[in-house]
Amino acid sequence: MEASSLVLGGTVWMYCRLYRTVDRFRKPEILEAAKAGGAFLRKFARVSCGSSGQWKCAFCLTRDGKAVKIQRTIFSECFYIMAMDELSRVIGDEDMQLEAEQMMEQLICWVRVDSSGLGRPQLPGDVPANSMAVPMMLLCLVQQLTEGRGPEVIQKYRELASWCVQKILQHIQREGTAILENVSVEGAELPGCQGRLLNPGHALEAGWFLLQFSVEQKDEELQRTAINKFMELPYQYGWDKEHGGLFYFLDVDGHCPTQLEWSMKLWWPHCEALIAFLMAYSQTKKPELLERFSKVYEYTFSHFPDVQRGEWFGYLTQGGKVALDFKGGPFKGFFHVPRCLYMCERILDDMLANKD
Amino acid sequence: MEASSLVLGGTVWMYCRLYRTVDRFRKPEILEAAKAGGAFLRKFARVSCGSSGQWKCAFCLTRDGKAVKIQRTIFSECFYIMAMDELSRVIGDEDMQLEAEQMMEQLICWVRVDSSGLGRPQLPGDVPANSMAVPMMLLCLVQQLTEGRGPEVIQKYRELASWCVQKILQHIQREGTAILENVSVEGAELPGCQGRLLNPGHALEAGWFLLQFSVEQKDEELQRTAINKFMELPYQYGWDKEHGGLFYFLDVDGHCPTQLEWSMKLWWPHCEALIAFLMAYSQTKKPELLERFSKVYEYTFSHFPDVQRGEWFGYLTQGGKVALDFKGGPFKGFFHVPRCLYMCERILDDMLANKD
Repeated sequence: MEASSLVLGGTVWMYCRLYRTVDRFRKPEILEAAKAGGAFLRKFARVSCGSSGQWKCAFCLTRDGKAVKIQRTIFSECFYIMAMDELSRVIGDEDMQLEAEQMMEQLICWVRVDSSGLGRPQLPGDVPANSMAVPMMLLCLVQQLTEGRGPEVIQKYRELASWCVQKILQHIQREGTAILENVSVEGAELPGCQGRLLNPGHALEAGWFLLQFSVEQKDEELQRTAINKFMELPYQYGWDKEHGGLFYFLDVDGHCPTQLEWSMKLWWPHCEALIAFLMAYSQTKKPELLERFSKVYEYTFSHFPDVQRGEWFGYLTQGGKVALDFKGGPFKGFFHVPRCLYMCERILDDMLANKD
Repeated sequence: MEASSLVLGGTVWMYCRLYRTVDRFRKPEILEAAKAGGAFLRKFARVSCGSSGQWKCAFCLTRDGKAVKIQRTIFSECFYIMAMDELSRVIGDEDMQLEAEQMMEQLICWVRVDSSGLGRPQLPGDVPANSMAVPMMLLCLVQQLTEGRGPEVIQKYRELASWCVQKILQHIQREGTAILENVSVEGAELPGCQGRLLNPGHALEAGWFLLQFSVEQKDEELQRTAINKFMELPYQYGWDKEHGGLFYFLDVDGHCPTQLEWSMKLWWPHCEALIAFLMAYSQTKKPELLERFSKVYEYTFSHFPDVQRGEWFGYLTQGGKVALDFKGGPFKGFFHVPRCLYMCERILDDMLANKD
């Protein structure tokens, strides 16, 4: 009965991207669905907040467009920008594109200048931290907004992209042996279980974001770091040697994480791992990276797809049994699976075209 | 490195209650620990919020007392009141007792008059709901604040107690066959998975709150409802027939809940079930209620205690294996286990004293 703007934004983005770049998906029904979703988001998701006059995006909306919840984070806004930018490319709507960039400006301001517009009370013990999700999402948005655009747009976001990369690299900790999910804004390890948290799927996703960026920048050192640190490390500590699959959360000191779902196998870390290792292999041709891809592929395709009814399950027990049997939910929409298949197909097509 | 005010408030309450009412725990070190915890809470947990001048309690504090997070709910305040009232009884501090009652007044105002002081933005799609936790906690607080006090205090909270009972009874749905965790403020079923949610442990806890209240009020109909609806029903649908133990969450229509941890076996629902069935048996002497108690007892004591190192584990897989191996965490403190043992011991002592 309610729509998540993350799920809806991701869906609109994916429909548009497929329509725009993959011939067999250039179908009117896909475009119409994307336009309808985009119109809903544009009309209802943006909410003017309090006295600041700033815009926030609702995290959750009723079927008829009433805001249910506004999170005090940036993620609803990120998916809003993704959706609006990609849709504007498909339908050639410059106003919409401008709107996406305006929201991006506000988002940059919240992250880098003044977070008070997010609505969190300023508390003395609430020390700002560098959570991996924030620079990752911003880097993803920079790549979205600059793709195929002229040099002035690329120039506009160049410094932000460098800042994102630097913030992501701060998560390499423990003398280069672990990617910690949360660090201080100065890039030091945080105390307690928050500081010790590992999120292998997230590190792998950051890995292919960095790898993609390193190619555009022709930055070989960043390429090596993306592969050796953000892919190889989380694979080493994140893979369940007993049952296979990637853990959702771990503790760098081997303690038990406090997240109840830490040992579950979720679909999206496996999606990110597939993209990461195939992209890394396509760039380096190192056979061990293809082996990693194959191992993740085998686990993924023998556990997540619902062979009888189609689609993927999202949530397995540590042992690999389906723990939650729905195909779509508050955090599982038309995003990670199709993005994974789309990215892998593109990488494989490129390899075939280059006769590798 | 951080303290939860729920866990700390619960711990202070429990220490004081044991010190005050159980001879073998009337020890100076228990009193000193409780006083130290109470002083910390009183000094640091209350935070003046925004322009309203209202007090909120921080949900999370640093070791040196800085507020990290303030939730937009009432639960930190509830545990603050519990702790302060019980501590004031032990040390005879009337100011502290007054403070607890003042916080209670504000809490009642948030729940029944104006919730804006909680700090949630008023959103058109955010329709107020009746979540079981709220009237349950308030009824628990009424019982705490009125216990052993004079008729004027009891009179003061009489209407609130009736309101709480009525709000809890609204959760009996589906023609009396299920206790739904969330209903509308008018007492109707809510649409979607939020409306279909079952939380068996919570219903059982509400059951013994109601049962206790029904005895004080000599209300036999409420007594029957507490047992037949709030204990028997959640036991019937909440018990895992395959592996034993109570599920954490279920869906009344048999769909899969969206909570990733739905099938896990948590310690606290079992604590609440033990209290509920032993209390129900002691009042009715119906052998089937003793059988329920025995079944829960057997599962609980063969799965949760750590035989080698003491204390209970908190989180098991559906199959009954330890899933998270820590003894204390963000939501597991010195509260549910000792309250369960304390309540059961009291009930058993009373039965022995009455030569049942």
